[in-house]
Amino acid sequence: MLTPFAFQSGHARAAALCALLLVGARASAQTDPLPSWNDGPAKQAIIEFVQATTTQGSAKFVAPADRVATFDQDGTTWVEQPMYTQVVYCLERVPALAKAKPALKDVEPFKTVLSGDRAAMAKFTMPDLEKILGATLTGMTVDEFTAEVKIWLATAKHPRYKRPYTELVYQPMLEVMRLFRANGYRTYFVTGGGQDFVRVYSEEVYGIPPEQVVGTAGATQFSYDKSGKPVLTKVAKLLLNDDKAGKPEGIHLVIGRRPVAAFGNSIGDKQMLEYTQAGDGARLMMLVHHDDAVREYAYGPSSKVGTFSDALMAEAQKRGWTVISMKNDWKRIFAFE
Amino acid sequence: MLTPFAFQSGHARAAALCALLLVGARASAQTDPLPSWNDGPAKQAIIEFVQATTTQGSAKFVAPADRVATFDQDGTTWVEQPMYTQVVYCLERVPALAKAKPALKDVEPFKTVLSGDRAAMAKFTMPDLEKILGATLTGMTVDEFTAEVKIWLATAKHPRYKRPYTELVYQPMLEVMRLFRANGYRTYFVTGGGQDFVRVYSEEVYGIPPEQVVGTAGATQFSYDKSGKPVLTKVAKLLLNDDKAGKPEGIHLVIGRRPVAAFGNSIGDKQMLEYTQAGDGARLMMLVHHDDAVREYAYGPSSKVGTFSDALMAEAQKRGWTVISMKNDWKRIFAFE
Repeated sequence: MLTPFAFQSGHARAAALCALLLVGARASAQTDPLPSWNDGPAKQAIIEFVQATTTQGSAKFVAPADRVATFDQDGTTWVEQPMYTQVVYCLERVPALAKAKPALKDVEPFKTVLSGDRAAMAKFTMPDLEKILGATLTGMTVDEFTAEVKIWLATAKHPRYKRPYTELVYQPMLEVMRLFRANGYRTYFVTGGGQDFVRVYSEEVYGIPPEQVVGTAGATQFSYDKSGKPVLTKVAKLLLNDDKAGKPEGIHLVIGRRPVAAFGNSIGDKQMLEYTQAGDGARLMMLVHHDDAVREYAYGPSSKVGTFSDALMAEAQKRGWTVISMKNDWKRIFAFE
Repeated sequence: MLTPFAFQSGHARAAALCALLLVGARASAQTDPLPSWNDGPAKQAIIEFVQATTTQGSAKFVAPADRVATFDQDGTTWVEQPMYTQVVYCLERVPALAKAKPALKDVEPFKTVLSGDRAAMAKFTMPDLEKILGATLTGMTVDEFTAEVKIWLATAKHPRYKRPYTELVYQPMLEVMRLFRANGYRTYFVTGGGQDFVRVYSEEVYGIPPEQVVGTAGATQFSYDKSGKPVLTKVAKLLLNDDKAGKPEGIHLVIGRRPVAAFGNSIGDKQMLEYTQAGDGARLMMLVHHDDAVREYAYGPSSKVGTFSDALMAEAQKRGWTVISMKNDWKRIFAFE
């Protein structure tokens, strides 16, 4: 009786193992890679694209080396209202700057910023803003700048959500980035925001390392500090204005490959999406449409505010870009919800 | 007797497997990752550095995300004599250019280039060279430029070795790059050569993908061609002169991390090595010294030709950088030897 028993025992074990494996496989197949998305054409487009471009033998297969997906940041992967986070940073840096350089206290536009008069600040001209950005984004070493941004991020809060800016990240877009990366894609930021600013938190918050951040970039200047140590100082010389036509130009400069997928939300992303689409083979172009005033903000063709214009919506329809409705496509917007 | 037999059988199988694994491990331990290197301090420095920085628990351990190694190209990973390959390219492109724009035939310095008078060309001034570089490196789309370089690389031959330039790659340095990559390092070019030029062959020849080529970079301009397709045109606006102080500046622009290892061969690499060394933790800085007139070229402190000056050798000694002697450290220089 030993052999039959042993056989049965082994068979029972194998059967149990098979059952376990099958349950595992079913559970895995049932795991939704985009749980914060409602079912709909946007979610479907993303899942189908990733599947088609990474399935060996698929007509749409994309070689691993070419798997580059680019994401705008402000308004595409985190909140950009009521003001770009980096501009808030620059304004909120002014008191510390005035402490170090007291002469600034009597000079405009710094005087107005220090007064805290929001209405007056709202009337700043482009040259005013440039003075503030120049004073807060240049003149320090790269390491000093990184330290300053880290300190600010740890304490600053968004006026509406009363939370750190780094929590105002769109959970559905984090899931998209993870899905792409889990399928061999490199995810890049291609942002109008400052490259050095975004690099400070991009890895921790989005899983995007510094070398995959393409942003508006000023020059740095190599020199030696008093102790003879080499340092890079941020100087007021613009190398790349990473907006509109600057986005494909920046992509070429830093990546040197055409993306196969691109995500944006504004007229500043139009050229990036066009450039992405102009390549051969499978392509995915998507625009986040801010149409949810309750959970986030509504601005776009209907609200006539902001940068998602009627013209951009018309181009999206003409070119077959997929528009993501925050209101309808996103089950959840933030991780803290 | 069934049980002991089964046990013995299992034991025998396990023993055989162990023997196999041990043989495998011994074979692996005996495989030299740098077979084209002679034993010596340079080879030892590389192997010890890679081992120490990638061994968990080592005091010199470097986290995978920070494993960035940068390599100069001309003179560090391929032949740069008697002329930088890209300059040869520009000169040899002139006939095709003159065919497309016949007016150039009567204009200097193009007239001299077309005459083939090498002695006259050797006397070109910097402005002469700039005219030639400008005419052959800008004005076309990025795709057109890539196609032109590919055609040239397929046919051009080095005057001494009578081989394609892409074969004049230092086999010992290819082995170093592979060793680094096999241990989780990302290998980057940081070259004074044109970023777009080097990208054409860097992946195939060195295993370095386009996004890991930091080079001298001109701007591109986004526009639409006659059919409405978006194109990037190379324009005559320098964004990054990736030489000397421009190397750490370029590293910050494109990589945004400080390298932990850097390889160069000339005074143009000094700042990159200094910047690398100034970081915390384990660091490796190496300079290739061209002292082998028989197999390659000899230029440097002794020959008083070229860019490996006495001052650079003094700095290497002062800072503890390892100098690689091509003559003594490299068993084999080229794969075709």
